[in-house]
Amino acid sequence: SKGSTGIDGLQPSERETPTPAAGQVLVRMRAASLNFRDLAVVNGKYIGGPVLKDTIPLSDGAGEVAEVGPGVKELAVGDRVVAMFTQGDSPAALGSPLDGVLTEYAVFDRKGLLRVPDHMSFEEAATLPCAGVTAWNALFHGRPLKPGETVVTLGTGGVSIYVLQLAKLAGARIIITSSSNAKLAKAQSMGADHVINYKNEPEWENRVRELTNGLGADKVVDLAGVGTLPHSYKAVGPGGEVLVIGVLSRPEGDLSPYPLMMKGASLRGIFVGGREHFEGLIRAVAVNRLKPVIDKSFSFSEAPRAYEYLKSAQHVGKVVISI
Amino acid sequence: SKGSTGIDGLQPSERETPTPAAGQVLVRMRAASLNFRDLAVVNGKYIGGPVLKDTIPLSDGAGEVAEVGPGVKELAVGDRVVAMFTQGDSPAALGSPLDGVLTEYAVFDRKGLLRVPDHMSFEEAATLPCAGVTAWNALFHGRPLKPGETVVTLGTGGVSIYVLQLAKLAGARIIITSSSNAKLAKAQSMGADHVINYKNEPEWENRVRELTNGLGADKVVDLAGVGTLPHSYKAVGPGGEVLVIGVLSRPEGDLSPYPLMMKGASLRGIFVGGREHFEGLIRAVAVNRLKPVIDKSFSFSEAPRAYEYLKSAQHVGKVVISI
Amino acid sequence: SKGSTGIDGLQPSERETPTPAAGQVLVRMRAASLNFRDLAVVNGKYIGGPVLKDTIPLSDGAGEVAEVGPGVKELAVGDRVVAMFTQGDSPAALGSPLDGVLTEYAVFDRKGLLRVPDHMSFEEAATLPCAGVTAWNALFHGRPLKPGETVVTLGTGGVSIYVLQLAKLAGARIIITSSSNAKLAKAQSMGADHVINYKNEPEWENRVRELTNGLGADKVVDLAGVGTLPHSYKAVGPGGEVLVIGVLSRPEGDLSPYPLMMKGASLRGIFVGGREHFEGLIRAVAVNRLKPVIDKSFSFSEAPRAYEYLKSAQHVGKVVISI
Amino acid sequence: SKGSTGIDGLQPSERETPTPAAGQVLVRMRAASLNFRDLAVVNGKYIGGPVLKDTIPLSDGAGEVAEVGPGVKELAVGDRVVAMFTQGDSPAALGSPLDGVLTEYAVFDRKGLLRVPDHMSFEEAATLPCAGVTAWNALFHGRPLKPGETVVTLGTGGVSIYVLQLAKLAGARIIITSSSNAKLAKAQSMGADHVINYKNEPEWENRVRELTNGLGADKVVDLAGVGTLPHSYKAVGPGGEVLVIGVLSRPEGDLSPYPLMMKGASLRGIFVGGREHFEGLIRAVAVNRLKPVIDKSFSFSEAPRAYEYLKSAQHVGKVVISI
Repeated sequence: SKGSTGIDGLQPSERETPTPAAGQVLVRMRAASLNFRDLAVVNGKYIGGPVLKDTIPLSDGAGEVAEVGPGVKELAVGDRVVAMFTQGDSPAALGSPLDGVLTEYAVFDRKGLLRVPDHMSFEEAATLPCAGVTAWNALFHGRPLKPGETVVTLGTGGVSIYVLQLAKLAGARIIITSSSNAKLAKAQSMGADHVINYKNEPEWENRVRELTNGLGADKVVDLAGVGTLPHSYKAVGPGGEVLVIGVLSRPEGDLSPYPLMMKGASLRGIFVGGREHFEGLIRAVAVNRLKPVIDKSFSFSEAPRAYEYLKSAQHVGKVVISI
Repeated sequence: SKGSTGIDGLQPSERETPTPAAGQVLVRMRAASLNFRDLAVVNGKYIGGPVLKDTIPLSDGAGEVAEVGPGVKELAVGDRVVAMFTQGDSPAALGSPLDGVLTEYAVFDRKGLLRVPDHMSFEEAATLPCAGVTAWNALFHGRPLKPGETVVTLGTGGVSIYVLQLAKLAGARIIITSSSNAKLAKAQSMGADHVINYKNEPEWENRVRELTNGLGADKVVDLAGVGTLPHSYKAVGPGGEVLVIGVLSRPEGDLSPYPLMMKGASLRGIFVGGREHFEGLIRAVAVNRLKPVIDKSFSFSEAPRAYEYLKSAQHVGKVVISI
Repeated sequence: SKGSTGIDGLQPSERETPTPAAGQVLVRMRAASLNFRDLAVVNGKYIGGPVLKDTIPLSDGAGEVAEVGPGVKELAVGDRVVAMFTQGDSPAALGSPLDGVLTEYAVFDRKGLLRVPDHMSFEEAATLPCAGVTAWNALFHGRPLKPGETVVTLGTGGVSIYVLQLAKLAGARIIITSSSNAKLAKAQSMGADHVINYKNEPEWENRVRELTNGLGADKVVDLAGVGTLPHSYKAVGPGGEVLVIGVLSRPEGDLSPYPLMMKGASLRGIFVGGREHFEGLIRAVAVNRLKPVIDKSFSFSEAPRAYEYLKSAQHVGKVVISI
Repeated sequence: SKGSTGIDGLQPSERETPTPAAGQVLVRMRAASLNFRDLAVVNGKYIGGPVLKDTIPLSDGAGEVAEVGPGVKELAVGDRVVAMFTQGDSPAALGSPLDGVLTEYAVFDRKGLLRVPDHMSFEEAATLPCAGVTAWNALFHGRPLKPGETVVTLGTGGVSIYVLQLAKLAGARIIITSSSNAKLAKAQSMGADHVINYKNEPEWENRVRELTNGLGADKVVDLAGVGTLPHSYKAVGPGGEVLVIGVLSRPEGDLSPYPLMMKGASLRGIFVGGREHFEGLIRAVAVNRLKPVIDKSFSFSEAPRAYEYLKSAQHVGKVVISI
C-alpha cells in the first residue's frame, strides 16, 4: 500500500512472509476492522504525522498463530489471537507508523497479542482493539460506571455502539444521539433506553436533563468532534465525567469548561487504552458472550470499497474486512 | 413486643398513632422483611446489646406516607417509601435499639426515607434496607465490580441472592455455594453461572480456582460465619477482595490473613451502608426493573411463624411480612 | 450593607442579635476573609444572581459560640468555630444569597460549623472556608496527590498560596507562576520549588515540561481565568489533572481539550467543597500546625478599604478583617 | 554461598563475570541491604520454598552500570542504579529463588533497574527495594494516605522506619510501638509524633484511640507477626486500613476480623510492590531528599556478622553491606 495518497493509493503488494524472532509471534491474519483514524491516515491527515509510503494499513486485526519465535510459551500454533493497537511500551500504533494488519502474515511481540474469546469470529474479534478498548476505557476507568447510572453517547459509529452494548451489560441506562431516525431505530433495537435526534433537538442536553430528574448524565461519551462539546458540558451531571475521544482540534462554540466547574464534574481524554484495558474488555465480552455489531463485511480485494463505505458514514457499528 | 424473650415473646400491642414533628414523616407501614439479625435481637444475643422490652421489632420496612411534619417538602401524603436501616448520623438501627417497622404507623426523619421504585411492591421494597444495601456495598464499593469479573457468594440467604442478582445485572460471573442441591438448583435458575455444594467439596476454593484459570475470584462475599473464612482467603485472587458480613465472632480454624498477603488481596468489613449506598441501589434496581427474590410471605398475625421459618433456614431469598 | 452597588454601597447597619432555634448556634464573629467572589457580589456580577440589598456580605468567617439552641450537644458557649461556605444540603452560600459573616452576631446550623484548630487565630481560621477548602479539594480529591508529584499553581492569590502550602506539607514539588518578580520571590520564601514569570515566559508550559523530564505536571491548578487554560492543557502530563477554579466564562484562545486526549489527562471543575473536605483540611492544618499566609488585616470599620485592597491585586495570600 | 545451611553456610566464591544479553545490563554492585526474609532464606524457612545451594544471597542492592547489552538505550555505563525485588512479570525474587545482589557483578533485565536519586549513596539506595517499596505500597496505595491522617506502625525495623519517614513527609501523624524505650526515643528523634511501649501497654490500641478522639487510626501497619493482629483490628478506625506484612502464619489469639466489620474497615496484604510503586517511591525520595535510616553498615567480608546483627534485632532502620 502507499500512504497519504487517498483511498485510491491503496494497492495490493507482495512481501515475503516474515519470521518471528525471539519473543515474537507470526500471525496469519483473518480479519481487520476500520476506524475513522484509517481514513485520516490514507489522507495524510493523521495527527501522528504523515504515513510512510508502503506502510501496511489498518490497526485492528485478528488471526491465527502460524509460528512462534524462541521463548514464546504462552501461545501456540493455531491459537486465535487479536492484536493490540499499540505494541508494548511505545505509543506507536499499528497501521501508522507501524505496519498494520491488512495483510496475510504479520509479526507481533508476544505481549501485543491476546486470545480471542471462543464465541467470537475473527471478524468480530477484529473490532475489539480500537473501538472496543476505547469504549471500555471510557466506561470502566476514571470514574467507573455503576449499574443504574446514565450514559449518553454521541452518534452510532463503532465506538458508540460498543458503549451502548457495554453500558447495557453493566446494568446502566443508555441515551444515544444521531441525526438519522433510521440509525436511532437500529440503536433502539440494540437496547438503547432513549434516543435523541439532535437535528430536531439541537439542545439535546435539555432532554438528557429531563430524563435524569434535572441532574444530567453520569457519563457523556463525546465522539462527535467540534461543536458537541459545549452541549456535553451541559448534559453531564454533578460529579459526572465527559469523555473526549477523537478529533476536536478546532475551537468552535464556547469551549469554556465553566459549566463543569459548578457541578464538580470532570472531562477525561481517551486515547484507546493499554493491555490492562484490553484484558478487562475481553473478559467482559467472554463472560457475557457479547457479539459486536458488524454493519458490513468486505473481502480483502474490496478493501478500498470498505474505506469508501466508512467515509459515507452510513454504518451503525463496525465495518470489517475478511482476509 | 417484648425483647429478649425469644420468638414467643413477640406480642401484639396497641399504641397511639404518633404525630410527625418538624422534619419528620408518618408512614403507614405495608410490609416488613426479616434478617438473621432479628433472630439475634429477640434472643437477646444481638451484639448491639440487649433489646429493651416493648421495642417494636424489625428494621426493614416499606409503606405509604400518611402525614408529613412541618418543613418536609420532598415527600407528600401517598408517596411510597422505604426506611433506612440506620436513621441519620447515628449507627443506631431500627428494630434495636430504635423502634422498628413491624407496626401500622411509624415516624421517621425525612432523611431516613427513600422512594420505592414504581415496579416494586411494598413486600419487595421491604427487602432492600439490609440485604439489598449490604449486597450493593459489597459489590460496588471498595474495589468496584467490573463486567466479566468473578464473584463468589456463600449460601442462599437474602444477602447472597441479592449478590447474585446484582452481580448478574452488572455483567459479572457468579459462583454460589450451599449444602443443598435443591437450593443450588434454585440459584442456578436465578442465573448463577456455577454452583458448588460445599458438603461434597469442602475445599470449594479449589473449584473456584479451577473456574478462574487458577487465579481465584475477584470478590468473595463471606456471609457464612466461622469456618468459611480460611477458605475464602484461599478462594480470592490477586488484588481481590473478601467481604466480611455477619457473625464471625469465635476464632475457629486458621484465621490468619497470611494467604491474602502474597496476593496483595484485601478483606473489607461490611455493616449495611449509608444513604449514598441505598440511593445507588435504588437507581440500579429501578433502571433494571430488578425483582427481589421473596421466598415466602406471612401476614402480620403470623409474624412469629415468619421468625420460625427464617430460623429453619429453608429459604432462598427473603422472608417478608405484609402489614 | 447594600448589594450590587459597588464597594461604596457597603454600609454599616444595626440589627437585633438573633436567637438560635433548635439545632442552631449563635456565633460572635471575630474575623472574616475576602475572596474575589466578594468583589463580584458587591458589583452585582456574581454568577449566583444579583445580591439582595441588605444582605450581610462575606462568606468566610470565624468566631466564638455565644449561645446554642435546643438539641445542640457538640458545641458549647466559648468554643472557637469557623463557618462552612455553604450551609447544609443547599448550594446557597454565605454572603450571597444567604446573609454572611461581616457582622457581630450570626446564627448557623450546627452542621455548618467546625472547630478552629488550637494553634490558629480567628483571622487565620477565617481564611479556611473558601480558599483553604478549594485548595484541599483540588489537591487531595479526584486524583489524590502523592509525595514527589509536581503541582503547578497559577498566581499568588489566596487559593494559590494554600495550594503551595498544602502541596509542600504533602511532600510534593510546587511550581508557581506570576507576572511579578516580587510576588514570586515571596512565594519562593514560602517554599515554592520553582517560580515562573509568565510575562517573560508566556509559553510557561515549556518550562514545566523541562522541569519534569518532558512529561508535564501531575496537577495544574488553573485559577487565572480566560487565556491560561490552553497553556494548562499543555503543561499537564500523562494521566494528570487540570483543576478549573474561578471565572472562565468567555471563550478565548483554543480551548479545545484535544491536548488532554492524547495524554489520557483530565480536567476537573472545583466549586469549593463540602463538610468532608473541610474536615480533612482542618485535620491536616492542625497536625502540621500550618499557618495560613495573611497578607494584610483590616479592622471592621475599614471593610471598604479591604475590598479596595483586594481589588488592587497586590496581595500574596489572604486579606482579612478583624471584627 | 550455600542455601539452607544457616548463617555459617554463607561462603564467598568466585564466578565468572557474566555478559549482558540483549535487553540486559551488567551492574557492578556497590551495596546491599538485609531484610528478615534473608534470615529465613539462609535457614531454609522461606515460604518461597527451600533455597538452592550456591544461590547468591540478598535481594536488595545498588551499584553502577558496567556494561549494557544490545538494545538497551535508557541506561549507560556509569549510571547509578538500584534493582527491583522481583524482575519482570514473574513473582520470583532476587536472593531466592533468583541469584541475588551480594556479589561484585550481576546481570539484570533493563526493566528490573531504576536510577538512584542523586542525593543518595549506594548504601542508602540499597535500602529501597524491599523496605522502601513495601512502606510506599502500604501508605500510598489501597486507601491513599492524606495529610493530617494518623498512621500506626509496629516496631522499629527497616519497613517501620520507612513508614515513619514517608508518613511524616506526607504530612501525616505517626504513632510507633516498640518494647524498648531506647528505640522509641530514637524513633521520636526521627519525627514520631507519639510512641507506645507495648510491654507497658499491652492494650496499646486504647492509647491509639485516646490519641484519635476515640476513633482509631487511618492506617495500621502490622509488621510484627502473630499476636499483634487482634490489637491492630481494634486500633484501626472507621473506614481505615490494616496493612498485613510479613510472617503471620500460625493462628494465635482471636484473629477473627469481626472488629473490622462494624467499622467498615479493611485489611490489605502487602508483598513488596511493582515497578509503579518503586518509581513513585524514588520520585518522593528525590523531591524530598529523604535520607533512609541506616543503623549499621558492614563490609563484604563481614556479611555473616551483618546477618547476626539483624538476627539480634538491636537495629532501628536498616542494616547494610558495602561491596
